[in-house]
Amino acid sequence: PTEDDLTTAAASEAFGLPLVENEQARELVLEHFRRLRREPHPANRRQYLLPRTAEVLPNPLGTAPGFLLEQPSCLLAFFPGVPREMRAMVEQELLPRLRRRFPALSTWQEVRLRVFGISEPEIERLLSDSRLPEIEIGFGVDFPETVIKLRGRNPEVLVRAEAAVRAALPGGICYPDGASLAKVALDNLARQNLSLSLAESCTGGLIAAALTDIPGASRVLERGAVTYANSAKNDWLGVSTSLLEKHGAVSEACARTMAEGIRAAAGSDIGLAVTGIAGPDGGSAGKPVGTVFLALADNEGTRVEHLALGGSRQRIRRLTTMTALARLARYPGEGTK
Amino acid sequence: PTEDDLTTAAASEAFGLPLVENEQARELVLEHFRRLRREPHPANRRQYLLPRTAEVLPNPLGTAPGFLLEQPSCLLAFFPGVPREMRAMVEQELLPRLRRRFPALSTWQEVRLRVFGISEPEIERLLSDSRLPEIEIGFGVDFPETVIKLRGRNPEVLVRAEAAVRAALPGGICYPDGASLAKVALDNLARQNLSLSLAESCTGGLIAAALTDIPGASRVLERGAVTYANSAKNDWLGVSTSLLEKHGAVSEACARTMAEGIRAAAGSDIGLAVTGIAGPDGGSAGKPVGTVFLALADNEGTRVEHLALGGSRQRIRRLTTMTALARLARYPGEGTK
Repeated sequence: PTEDDLTTAAASEAFGLPLVENEQARELVLEHFRRLRREPHPANRRQYLLPRTAEVLPNPLGTAPGFLLEQPSCLLAFFPGVPREMRAMVEQELLPRLRRRFPALSTWQEVRLRVFGISEPEIERLLSDSRLPEIEIGFGVDFPETVIKLRGRNPEVLVRAEAAVRAALPGGICYPDGASLAKVALDNLARQNLSLSLAESCTGGLIAAALTDIPGASRVLERGAVTYANSAKNDWLGVSTSLLEKHGAVSEACARTMAEGIRAAAGSDIGLAVTGIAGPDGGSAGKPVGTVFLALADNEGTRVEHLALGGSRQRIRRLTTMTALARLARYPGEGTK
Repeated sequence: PTEDDLTTAAASEAFGLPLVENEQARELVLEHFRRLRREPHPANRRQYLLPRTAEVLPNPLGTAPGFLLEQPSCLLAFFPGVPREMRAMVEQELLPRLRRRFPALSTWQEVRLRVFGISEPEIERLLSDSRLPEIEIGFGVDFPETVIKLRGRNPEVLVRAEAAVRAALPGGICYPDGASLAKVALDNLARQNLSLSLAESCTGGLIAAALTDIPGASRVLERGAVTYANSAKNDWLGVSTSLLEKHGAVSEACARTMAEGIRAAAGSDIGLAVTGIAGPDGGSAGKPVGTVFLALADNEGTRVEHLALGGSRQRIRRLTTMTALARLARYPGEGTK
């Protein structure tokens, strides 16, 4: 409700409709404050001054209501500028009104799937044998994931197409748009009744944060260590000074010991560790920025992957996190779904 | 380079310009693959088939080049659909060309400042005594931060306006758009030569991840513990079973012990801990979802804040993280800048 909110005044002027106190909007604004047990600010009055003839669009998440103006052969919808509020209002208030008004419009439906770790041409190649009749297929990027968009008019055909696409791609790394690789990873470990502990150096807590974003993460995650200083690697993970001197903190040996160390400390089924150089500084000729070691320890032993990543610090940390989650999503092995 | 990329073909058809192999684009695409030491896919050839007369816009971050088409009284620019590639190309390739072509256009400049923890009306009130001549001021929301936009034609006036706004707002929570609260927090502790350790329960590594996103975080951050299971709180932080039984893991007593425990384990100047209920489950009448305790231990003692937050799990975790970072950005006290 600040001085630079000119939308309502502009609409009023453009259509020659004076601003009046809208009874319904007033009630919604005051109700919002009552619910929060806060006093409205005098500036909040501006939120229920709407152009005469406006139809109110309630705001389920904030104070400012939106409104519809009906003009000759044109319907105008006005929303507050906060993205999450606008999104909820479009979905809950605007779209139902449009559907009631224009029932004859045919509806395409879209199913989106996310894929991590394989390129677009590779996805196309893997899908080339799948029969996808009556379906339009498209691709998008939401870094670092590729988004596959399936569009069709028949819901059953779409369901079959989604199943066909998922069957054609490697397990664990293709998941619905609403899910995330972290959720796939957690569900995969929970289904196998496995506990997990983490030791993170270059990702600095990103893997733990991604997993704990999912409700119920505590079923799987026992603990995580963000070991930036060598003393932390030593105390908590048993990485010795001599190992650090001989191999360095960014090394296969260190990653291995970190994974085994956190697994032992936590008493968990799986210990996963990453150590690497996220940059922009700290690289060398032998270990350039983007050098990352990812280790997974379980009762079969410890395997270490060496990743050579490119790009910014953010990109390297993000790709390392996603690669670790993909490893957990596919656990125990490459071939499993 | 997938089958659904129709932009170039559409441009070719719309303007009657046949697609031809563009020598410069070809060289850029092949060079990109040489740099990555990978073989181009046959589909990549489509990335250098461009409409005749196209001027190539190199892509510094990916394979597909963009291009300009000059039409009567209209200049068209085409980009790949990957947002970070397009953004870099607009900034590095398109804007310099436009500035050379239209040097007479006057340029408004905008300075953006981010603010966390105070409301828009409150910011307006705090700024009401500041003299901001020749400046247009606007507000936006990038949850959970408010963005203040200062626009003007005179760079010196803008610099003075920025300083006036920052002086009018509380220290530590107002920072340039390119910065982040995590960077302000790190810089504040680094300037005082202080080391930090973290113990996170409900935020699950988000605070550590935010701090380690900033290059040089290792100057300040010694270690972080993500203690989901009680055994982790016990082993690493010295939270006893009897404390957990008496007060629960989400309690002032537990937060206090976690902060003191991590500070002692790490031997750091500051220990910061959070424990709370992020939801959607786990709340009760006495401790509803959104109950969070934030504790900070230093050589003066330990202070615990009780937060009562609302909204989704993501929102509660995000607000807790930002509140913790704001605490570090203002450290040692409320009144300091």
